Formats: sequence, C-alpha cells, structure tokens
Amino acid sequence: MAWFRNLVQLSSLKSSLRSRSATTPFPNTQFVSILQFSSQPNSEPTRHVPSSGLGPTSSKEKPRVVVLGSGWAGCRAMKGLDTNIYDVVCVSPRNHMVFTPLLASTCVGTLEFRSVAEPIARIQPVISRETGSYFFLANCNRVDPDNHVVHCQTLTNGANVREPWDFEISYDKLIIASGSMPLTFGIHGVEEHAFFLREVHHAQEIRRKLLLNLMLSDVPGISEAEKQRLLHCVVVGGGPTGVEFSGELSDFITRDVHQRYAHVKNYIHVTLIEANEILSSFDDRLRHYATRQLTKSGVRLVRGIVKDVKVDKIILNNGTEVPYGLLVWSTGVGPSSFVKSMEVPKSPGGRIGIDEWLRVPSAQDIFAIGDCSGFLESTGKPVLPALAQVAERQGKYLAEQLNRIGKAGGGYANRARDMEFGEPFVYKHLGSMASLGRYKALVDLRQGKEGKGLSLAGFTSWIIWRSAYLTRVLSWRNRLYVAINWATTFVFGRDISRI
Amino acid sequence: MAWFRNLVQLSSLKSSLRSRSATTPFPNTQFVSILQFSSQPNSEPTRHVPSSGLGPTSSKEKPRVVVLGSGWAGCRAMKGLDTNIYDVVCVSPRNHMVFTPLLASTCVGTLEFRSVAEPIARIQPVISRETGSYFFLANCNRVDPDNHVVHCQTLTNGANVREPWDFEISYDKLIIASGSMPLTFGIHGVEEHAFFLREVHHAQEIRRKLLLNLMLSDVPGISEAEKQRLLHCVVVGGGPTGVEFSGELSDFITRDVHQRYAHVKNYIHVTLIEANEILSSFDDRLRHYATRQLTKSGVRLVRGIVKDVKVDKIILNNGTEVPYGLLVWSTGVGPSSFVKSMEVPKSPGGRIGIDEWLRVPSAQDIFAIGDCSGFLESTGKPVLPALAQVAERQGKYLAEQLNRIGKAGGGYANRARDMEFGEPFVYKHLGSMASLGRYKALVDLRQGKEGKGLSLAGFTSWIIWRSAYLTRVLSWRNRLYVAINWATTFVFGRDISRI
Repeated sequence: MAWFRNLVQLSSLKSSLRSRSATTPFPNTQFVSILQFSSQPNSEPTRHVPSSGLGPTSSKEKPRVVVLGSGWAGCRAMKGLDTNIYDVVCVSPRNHMVFTPLLASTCVGTLEFRSVAEPIARIQPVISRETGSYFFLANCNRVDPDNHVVHCQTLTNGANVREPWDFEISYDKLIIASGSMPLTFGIHGVEEHAFFLREVHHAQEIRRKLLLNLMLSDVPGISEAEKQRLLHCVVVGGGPTGVEFSGELSDFITRDVHQRYAHVKNYIHVTLIEANEILSSFDDRLRHYATRQLTKSGVRLVRGIVKDVKVDKIILNNGTEVPYGLLVWSTGVGPSSFVKSMEVPKSPGGRIGIDEWLRVPSAQDIFAIGDCSGFLESTGKPVLPALAQVAERQGKYLAEQLNRIGKAGGGYANRARDMEFGEPFVYKHLGSMASLGRYKALVDLRQGKEGKGLSLAGFTSWIIWRSAYLTRVLSWRNRLYVAINWATTFVFGRDISRI
Repeated sequence: MAWFRNLVQLSSLKSSLRSRSATTPFPNTQFVSILQFSSQPNSEPTRHVPSSGLGPTSSKEKPRVVVLGSGWAGCRAMKGLDTNIYDVVCVSPRNHMVFTPLLASTCVGTLEFRSVAEPIARIQPVISRETGSYFFLANCNRVDPDNHVVHCQTLTNGANVREPWDFEISYDKLIIASGSMPLTFGIHGVEEHAFFLREVHHAQEIRRKLLLNLMLSDVPGISEAEKQRLLHCVVVGGGPTGVEFSGELSDFITRDVHQRYAHVKNYIHVTLIEANEILSSFDDRLRHYATRQLTKSGVRLVRGIVKDVKVDKIILNNGTEVPYGLLVWSTGVGPSSFVKSMEVPKSPGGRIGIDEWLRVPSAQDIFAIGDCSGFLESTGKPVLPALAQVAERQGKYLAEQLNRIGKAGGGYANRARDMEFGEPFVYKHLGSMASLGRYKALVDLRQGKEGKGLSLAGFTSWIIWRSAYLTRVLSWRNRLYVAINWATTFVFGRDISRI
C-alpha cells in the first residue's frame, strides 16, 4: 500500500512546511506553475496569471466557459454547451440544482428532499470527468472584467474544516447566473425568525420545525395559548410559493395531522398574509377560485402589511399581534449582495443590466441570465419576471449563442469582439401554474396579464400541474422518485420522521 | 375564523401572565388539576402528584406503561403491548426508530435516510391517536422509583425555540430502553473530531463531510498532501459497523467516485484501524474471507491502537501519525450517562442490572431491556451482547409478560408485587451477518463462537443479507423504499447531491 506510506510521509513533509502553510494554507505546487509556462495565445499578451487557481487557457486547450451559479439558468446553459468546443467550469455554493416548483411539497413530506435535487454532475457530466472542466463548491466574490478573472472563495460550512481559501479562475466566457435573494423590505426580525423557501435546506428546516412544534404542543403542562401559538403556521406573501406551501400545509393537516397528531389536531391553523391580492399574476377568475379553495381548506387569508417580526409573534401595520410557531417568508426576490456589489450598469430594480443578446455591454465576454439579470432601460424591453421558465429559456438561448460563436472561432477571450450575435433573445410566456392542495390547481396559459388563452382551475388543472412537472423533472431517476413519492404519500400518508 | 380571534386574544392574555411565565414557561392549567381531583384507587394512598405532567392513573383509566427510548427494544415492546389493557407513553429524543443494520448504506447514498427511519406513530399508532397514550420528544433525566415517577425535559434543539421545560410522568410500569453510548475510552479528541454511526443525523453528517471533501480536494491550488489527507477516510473499530461502512465506502469509490469525481479518484483511500482482529465474533474462516475481500477492495487494514485524535490526524500508540479527512468511530458501546446516574445495582460492565425476567429487582414495576441492561451477576447468566436481535427479543418477551400481568389485573402500580412471572427470558442467538461491499457478505448461523451451524461467505450470503434485512424492515412503505433505493443505485448509481 504505497499510498499509505506516501500519505504518512507527506504528513511529515507538511509539518515542515507549516510555517509557510500558516499564511497560504494550501500552497500551490504544480497547477499554476505549469500554467505559468504555457504559451499565451490570446490577443492580449498581458493576461493576468493568478497565483492560485486556473490560469488563462492556451491554444492547446479548449476555451473555458465559467458559470457562476447552479440554478435554472446556469444549469440549463451548462447542459446546452457543446463540450467539444468548450471546457465548462461551474462555481456554486451547492452541487445540485433545486427543482423549485416542487420544493413546497417537500416541507410536509409529500415529496422527499432528494427527489427535487439534481446533482450538477448529472446535468453536465464533463464537470466531473474531463480534464479542464470542473465544479467548485465556492462563492464568487468579485469579477475582474479587465483581466478576465473571477475571484472565488471555498465554502467550508460543516464541521472540522479549515479556513476558507481563495482562488482565481480565468475565463474566456463568463456566464453570471448567480440568482437573487429573498426580499425582506428591511423589516426587522425576518432574517432571524422566518424561514425562506428557496433551497433544500430551507425545506428541511421547515419540516423539522413543524414536526418539533407538533410534538412540543403535545407535552403535558403546556398552556392553551402556547399550544395555539406553536401550531399557528403563518405564511407571508401570496405569490405561487406562498399559496402552494399553504395548500400543502392544509393537505398535511387534513390528512396526516388529524390521523397522526390527533391530540392536537384542533390547534393547528394556517394564515396567509398578503399586502395586496394573492396570485396577482393570474387571471381574475382563477384568483377568486384560489381564494375560495384556500378558505375552504381552512387557510385564513389576511390582508395586511408586516411591520415587525419577533421571536414568537408578528406585528402588523395596524398594530395586530399575530403569535406564530412557524413563519415562512415568501414575498419575492431582489438583487443579491454580489449583484449589488458589481460595478456595471444596472437594469430597473437593480439587476445586472443586459442587452437583447444577454450580454453585459460594458464588459467583454460577460453574460448574465436568470434572476440576477434584467434588460437595460436602453433596450426598451421590460425586466422579465424571476421565473424558472425565463431563466431556463435564457440558459438555452445563451448556450446556443456561445456554441455558434465557439464554432466560428470566437470561443477564446476577446475573440468575439466583432462577431455578429444573431437573433436577440425573445421571451414568450408559456403560462403559469399553481397547486392549491386537495387535488386542485390553477393553470393559466395566457401570455400575460391581459393576453388571451386558456385558463382553468380544479382537478383537471391539478392533473395537468402534476403531469407537467413530472415531465419537467430533469432526470429519470428523480422522475421515478417523484412518481413513487406521490404514490406512497397517497397510499401510506406523509412521512413524519423528524430526522 | 373564531380560532384566529381567540389566538390573538390568548396572545394578550399571555402577556398578562408573563410574570408567572418567567419561572414556569408553560403554566399548567387544566391537565393536572383534573388529575388531582380524580380518585386514587391504588394500594398506596400517598402517590406523588406531579406539578406539571401526567399524574397517577385512576381506576377509570387504563394502567400506563411508560417506555424510555425508541430503539429496537423500546419499539418492539411498544408494538407488542396490548393497547386494550394499557395506555402507552413513550419518551424519547427522536420520534422514529432507526433500522441500524442499514444505516451504513445511507452514508454513501446507497439507501436514502428516510428508508431506514420508521416513525414511532407507525409502529404503535395509539401514541398519536388515543387519549392517555402519548409520544413526548424529551429526555428522561431521573427515575423516582419510590413515587413511580419519571422526570423529563423537552428537547428544543433547532432554531427559534424557547427554554426546555420540565415535566413528570407517573407510571404504572416503566420500561427503560434508553440504549447505550459509543465508547471512546477517554481518548482525547474523539468526541470533537470523529463521527459516530448510530443515528440518522450521524449518517447525514458523514455524507455531507465526504461530499464536501471530494469537492474541496478538486479546488485548484490545493497541495498533493492536502488532497490525500482530505480524501483519506479512516474507520476505527473492526466490528460489523466498521466493516460494513468500509465496504460501502469502497463500493462508492469503485463505482461512483471513479465516474463522478474522476479528477481526484486516485487520491481517495480507506483505512480500517482495529486493535485486535476484525469481526471477532465471526467464524475464523469468515474472518479470513472478510480480510481478503476488504484488502481486494482497496481497504487498508491496520492493526493499531489510537492514542490521540487531532483535527486532521490520528496519532497511534506507536507514534505513527495518520492524516485523515473523515474519521468514523465505531469501537462498540457502553453505558450512557443516564444509566451511570441510576442508583440501582449494575451488571458487569455497568449496565442496569436485571433478573431473568428483565426486572430491576430493587424497584417495583421497573424493567430494563436492550443495550442499557445486563443480567446481574447473581443470575449466573452472562451479559448479552449489544445487538438488535437481543433488544428486539427482550422487547417482545417483556410485552408478552406485561400483557399477561395486565390481563390478570396486575397492570396498575404495585399490583404485580406477588404475581408469578412465568418463564424467564432465554436468549437464543440466531446468527450474525455483515456485508463487505462488492456484492459480498458473511452469514454466520452458529449459535456462538464455539457453537455448530452453517457459516457462509460470498455472493449467496450477500443475497441472504439483503433479503433478510428487506423482510426485517418494519413497514411496507420502507420495505418498498429500500427495494427501490437498491434498484436505482444499481441502475443510476448513488445520489451525490450534498443537501
């Protein structure tokens, strides 16, 4: 076992290097030194060489597309890139894509967490297989457009890990698809006490909290008021996420809590707080239907504006205090701190400004797609909504553009400067869907608020909703699991282990 | 929505009660006051009435069996109790049972976490449905045999929760099945830096850590030594758990790492450290087979004694330093601090001492089963090994005994004092199994180290191992999921999302 001897020897070697390690915890040995001696074929002979990381590509390598983020936009772009032309490097704080439309279902156990998470290595296998393509579990802190470099820092959450460390990646093309952040409108206490619903770990936390509260409320000696508080689930924000989560919760209560938490079943309630009207992007008729359905399922709809969030209650603008045991916040999204920190012209709403070809016009070879980007005012186009279908369509479009450019020899940095960029990106809305629980859903196939088209509500819509998402789930593995999860939930009820 | 108005009103009420709440956060209102006025039919007229909790049962109620713990022993006992005779109250820090023999498979994604967790409410449904039966997510701190009372404290791990609070439960019969703790032999650093493998959250942490290390080791600029360290998985303890985990790891490396982490596949290694010999309870022939198989799969077997555990290396007794990225500790189990704190005669090894009928002889109506208990020296019987099959058999036996006693009118506290206790508990070992990875396993059906019987190793054993555990999984839901997990792992490989 030569490797074991080596390891033990390397360990002693490492001790002798400790003084050096103190400042640079992972001294680079081979990687960059090789790159430093590689020829530099690009038009700019002064390209920046990072001290630790991936240096500029040589003409012997493929041009490198760096993708920041692993959401709908970034993953769709990676999937579409021609890996015969490009090396793909993805930098993201998570190694999977979340199938967000089904995330609300995982909070109450209708679906399992892994059924809605797709490893990036399955979406674009080259990142784990081929030399030159990588996935880095890291955050990008800064983009340096002049040097065609992104500055990254590894993620080290979890136990027993060392200090995060910094590295740089030279890019030939950069796709910024870093997404958005939940809006809290500066309301005090939201970050500390509310749960968001955007990542798998959010759904996990919500599930743990909900089950904890159900069990705590059954403990002898607890007061009536405290029981009611613990089991009061409040959802702030009446968009599709808030409505779907409320619907799932009321399903969970009707079917599972009544059976498996019979002692406390009369204490659990759901309140949905919205400042304006729920599902504002949907057809009026559907909106009214949703309101009726939710009310019928026992969800209390409250029109109100949250002023303050305390550890156990919300205070509304009119002074009403609403005690809660679980608070889920889904009032839409806005620019992340990374996007805010970027010194580029912004779109209305503060997103990274892009032109009709999804390029960041002030910088060469940088593109931005998905929630983090918006058309510049100068394009005359409206900023598109933060929807999965927008992000996905942009990712697909951009991958095709880059493939075309790459084929024409414009793949390397600064080589596409004078190239034609083909047809601009045009977004055509395919429609919206939202489930309401109790085998009911809304399907709105109109092309906009005032557009024409089919809109329907009820059981048929629910069938369409389930079928549509089942076919949209990316891999066969997860498609199988989603179908099996739905079937077992139907037969056995939801899983209530708090793990 | 009357409940919502009530809730808001109760909230103001609660504010006025705050001064009182400060000392007793959940002042008991109804629960105990009702119990206090109930008649007390038991032979001891001076039974203790708790200030907050469940008081002594009246003759109008069923006698109450309190079960501490939700492992193999406690769950099997609960399942077997006749709920026409008894109310069942379970106190445990987790609301599910873990199917421990398959836990090692979840660390690398062969099985999903939920497939090996069974909610207690499915094992014994009365705890969530019927008045008088409960599950409390809590720890038991103290048993008061004189008053037939256990003192408990709620669990409040997780975000946004209040202080834990204390309550008491009067029991008619008490089953202590609180399990054991991993042995660390007082070695410095084990608790801080090593992972155990006994609960679902342990397996989750191991999986997250393993995937984190795989991704970190791929980051540019990392040194060779650090890469080797990060991807060196060390298992301490060569019992079935350690061997099965090593086998699963080597399967994961052969099949999944080579495909999905191709950049770093040559750096990942597994070392199994054992002070004596691996699988010491198995037949010699099987042990040699296991040694050959593991070595063939690339697991390095090291005979050594760990002296010290640092954040990134182990120091062995002979001074060798072994750098590691993941350390799993499975050197057996010993008495928990709860068991240590109990002032009852102990068995050899410090477990709660029991007689042949699994009774704690020094106290009325207290029984102890599973890993926390051991035969008193006076019984002349050896302490049974800490195995699932021992715990399960004891749980089954005890439930039958209690049902018999209950039917004969001895269910209430102090009523079984002079009753006959039937046949004593006799343990008959059915055999041991351990999987080695690569479709190989050991099956040892001898009735003891020196006993006679069948012992086999290889693919047939692996089929027996899988079939046996599949039929042992408690619910049809999980049986289905385990089978589906195995099938999808076979077809699609293991899931590598780090969620």
